Amino acid sequence: MDQMFVTREQERLLRELSDFLAIPSVSTLPAHAGDCRRAASWLMAELRRLGCPTVTLIEGAGHPVVWAGGPRRPGRPTLLVYGHYDVQPPDPLEEWDTPPFTPTVRDGKLYARGASDDKGQVFCMLKAYEATRDADGLPPCNVNFIFEGEEECGGRMIFDLLRSQPEHTRADAAIVLDMSYYAPGIPAVYTALRGLCYAEIAVRTLQRDLHSGTYGGVAPNAIETLVRILAGLKDEEGEILIPKLYKSVEEPGKSELKEWKKLPFDKAEYLRNEVTATALTGRKGYSVFERTWALPTFEIHGIRGGFTGDGAKTVIPAQATAKVSLRLVPGQKQEKVFRQLQKAVAALAPKWAEVEVRMLHGGDPVQVDTDAPAFGLLDEAFEEVVGRRTVHARAGGSIPIVPELGLTGAPVILTGIGLPDDGLHSPNEKLDLSQLWEGIQVFGRFLELFGERGGRGETEAGDALPDEEPAEASAEA
Amino acid sequence: MDQMFVTREQERLLRELSDFLAIPSVSTLPAHAGDCRRAASWLMAELRRLGCPTVTLIEGAGHPVVWAGGPRRPGRPTLLVYGHYDVQPPDPLEEWDTPPFTPTVRDGKLYARGASDDKGQVFCMLKAYEATRDADGLPPCNVNFIFEGEEECGGRMIFDLLRSQPEHTRADAAIVLDMSYYAPGIPAVYTALRGLCYAEIAVRTLQRDLHSGTYGGVAPNAIETLVRILAGLKDEEGEILIPKLYKSVEEPGKSELKEWKKLPFDKAEYLRNEVTATALTGRKGYSVFERTWALPTFEIHGIRGGFTGDGAKTVIPAQATAKVSLRLVPGQKQEKVFRQLQKAVAALAPKWAEVEVRMLHGGDPVQVDTDAPAFGLLDEAFEEVVGRRTVHARAGGSIPIVPELGLTGAPVILTGIGLPDDGLHSPNEKLDLSQLWEGIQVFGRFLELFGERGGRGETEAGDALPDEEPAEASAEA
Repeated sequence: MDQMFVTREQERLLRELSDFLAIPSVSTLPAHAGDCRRAASWLMAELRRLGCPTVTLIEGAGHPVVWAGGPRRPGRPTLLVYGHYDVQPPDPLEEWDTPPFTPTVRDGKLYARGASDDKGQVFCMLKAYEATRDADGLPPCNVNFIFEGEEECGGRMIFDLLRSQPEHTRADAAIVLDMSYYAPGIPAVYTALRGLCYAEIAVRTLQRDLHSGTYGGVAPNAIETLVRILAGLKDEEGEILIPKLYKSVEEPGKSELKEWKKLPFDKAEYLRNEVTATALTGRKGYSVFERTWALPTFEIHGIRGGFTGDGAKTVIPAQATAKVSLRLVPGQKQEKVFRQLQKAVAALAPKWAEVEVRMLHGGDPVQVDTDAPAFGLLDEAFEEVVGRRTVHARAGGSIPIVPELGLTGAPVILTGIGLPDDGLHSPNEKLDLSQLWEGIQVFGRFLELFGERGGRGETEAGDALPDEEPAEASAEA
Repeated sequence: MDQMFVTREQERLLRELSDFLAIPSVSTLPAHAGDCRRAASWLMAELRRLGCPTVTLIEGAGHPVVWAGGPRRPGRPTLLVYGHYDVQPPDPLEEWDTPPFTPTVRDGKLYARGASDDKGQVFCMLKAYEATRDADGLPPCNVNFIFEGEEECGGRMIFDLLRSQPEHTRADAAIVLDMSYYAPGIPAVYTALRGLCYAEIAVRTLQRDLHSGTYGGVAPNAIETLVRILAGLKDEEGEILIPKLYKSVEEPGKSELKEWKKLPFDKAEYLRNEVTATALTGRKGYSVFERTWALPTFEIHGIRGGFTGDGAKTVIPAQATAKVSLRLVPGQKQEKVFRQLQKAVAALAPKWAEVEVRMLHGGDPVQVDTDAPAFGLLDEAFEEVVGRRTVHARAGGSIPIVPELGLTGAPVILTGIGLPDDGLHSPNEKLDLSQLWEGIQVFGRFLELFGERGGRGETEAGDALPDEEPAEASAEA
């Protein structure tokens, strides 16, 4: 690998990444569909520039998937790189110090929506690939890239694609760069992700809004009804009150709990710098790791109803809505949990209210086995560049595609270059540039090691990969 | 009175009222301050056209007050007419069949924000005044008009004005046309109004929004905290859980309850056509009249927090806000109730949340004595025009200025031409045009009767009124 690549090219890299981050590819907002397409085009142009002979835009119901294959290195193992080009909505906008789509460097950190989740990490892997190409432009191993645009909105397109065309994922290993270091200086590989069941609860109690003077005292208030339902779904101690919810939860084993105890953790600092609260909440008798990695949660993400403008309006609202989700842990299944949620809401709803629970999106929890040789190669790369191997942790977030990436038997490496205080999904999301530069070197080295020793010792997955455009896909004009 | 006035002038009157209603004078929204001023100017021009020698715009911190005095009729009694030119916000806009500020007649009803509350009723009295002027343009009694622009937003300007310049309210009787018939065909006078204590509850649990994947399970959620506080302020049976709140409530006397029992009331129809719900809620053991007229209420008017756009965002919100109010009944005082609310919220708030309760506006409840002769004159007028006298009811709404209008000893007549299904504060607010035409005749006749027999038998209040511009006020250019 070109050891001077980062040092020499820093200015250009920063410019390129800033261009990518400036595209407001918010997948959940229909108004940004064009921006999602622009972000996909940006990636396609970049992949072509990097010499990928096959660069394909796969269209479907939602935002397109970008699929690309590097030049074939017969006999060498194949790595599948997954990432997503879509980002979370940036609001509340007023809390950003600089605009979310005007990438800005302050204090060695690049601030922008998507800086860490996940455009910055996608970019890191592209540049690692760029830095390891030889004089002929050939990478050290076979690499296939799959970048989707619906990770943040729960789109199903990539799921359908991978199920109907498993050749897109056939590889010796898959790597998902959408995670963070366990802590500054401590890289990590993740052994489990929580699943997600995201729903909307809508309540209607009246055919129209009413005047609280005239009808206050007898008219059912939709916000009051919704609030009572929500308050009934979780108690003050953090116990979720959905019947049978905890029944299928598989608690982590003793050895895993023991490993977690060894992880450095400063609760006071975590509270102050990460959670930014004055106290932690959650179920008593469980550690922070258990509460954020190994227990289901119930959160209210948004609520809306009645008059919320400036000043006062004395209205009895006819309708109210809340967005809620449960994070799921091994043993749980999103579809079953959704039915449990529906049932619990129905039981809490008074007879005079119309209450609807709509599934918005979700994914099952994931556990990954870290025995495959690729994990050891990643540790070698980290050790060479950063000076230490990865720790094994779990993550509380959800990447629903992960199980699908491993469907053809490839181990899935969940790792990344973020830091815990990156502010994912929050205002002032950032990426530490030192992490980016370090990451390019780590993953460049990993590509080299993988090219040498990344095979699964079975058939060479790389040879089975399509190196012409798949019939079902449309090449971008 | 000109008996043919309404028949002859209908078309012009409808045009004039539509012009007035087309002005979006939403007092609670700062962006509409200019529209409030336009509505005040509209009234001033109208009052000048009607021959009022004194038409004054009284400026203060908020939207201006319009004060006008008709030509003096020495020896005749003086009536003070109160109304407001401001309106409620029109949202939810999508629920209007025609735009709120494009007055539209359908089926004999005029649809527009303010049609009934209160521009249509102000207009009714102005036209009654117009119709009763003699050949020299002189009205049958002394009339003073006071129209404010902060009734819907709880502005204090008119309060300060009336306290510092009581001469503006000195009269033999005051009449407030901001109410409705008890039912179609049954005009009413109101003996009590509920008070109001309107507040905002703001919760902050985090310094910034967090990702529910990473921090779900330990980070305190602001919406959840708010929801729990709100659910704790009232139980499912409609009992408000604010300690000592009911202690000072003076329940209505036996004779008043007996009168209410005689009022025609069809609960099924009320539920279906007015409340538009499938069931009534509220405190058990109390009638609908008691629940809406004689008991305090707690309502949530609006709630906001987290992500409420389309799609899904997995955020743990740092802040959330709700607008709430209590309606107050005789015996209660808004300031005391606000302190009780603050205390109750503080008791429900967990120690790790910043919770603030801010008073937005309010007013004490009102009881009026209906013994003064003016009430009998109004009954005569209704009897002549509509064929029946008024019933005595209470109203659940609040008009905080009412006690102030009676400060100089004038009886305050609370009445109006609305109908219970006018949709005040709701989408598709309307005024039945038959009510308007009938109302012009009723109040025209009332002005005549009042001119003959409306004196309080004491000093003639009319002579004490300023008929030049008050020193503190600025005449509009």
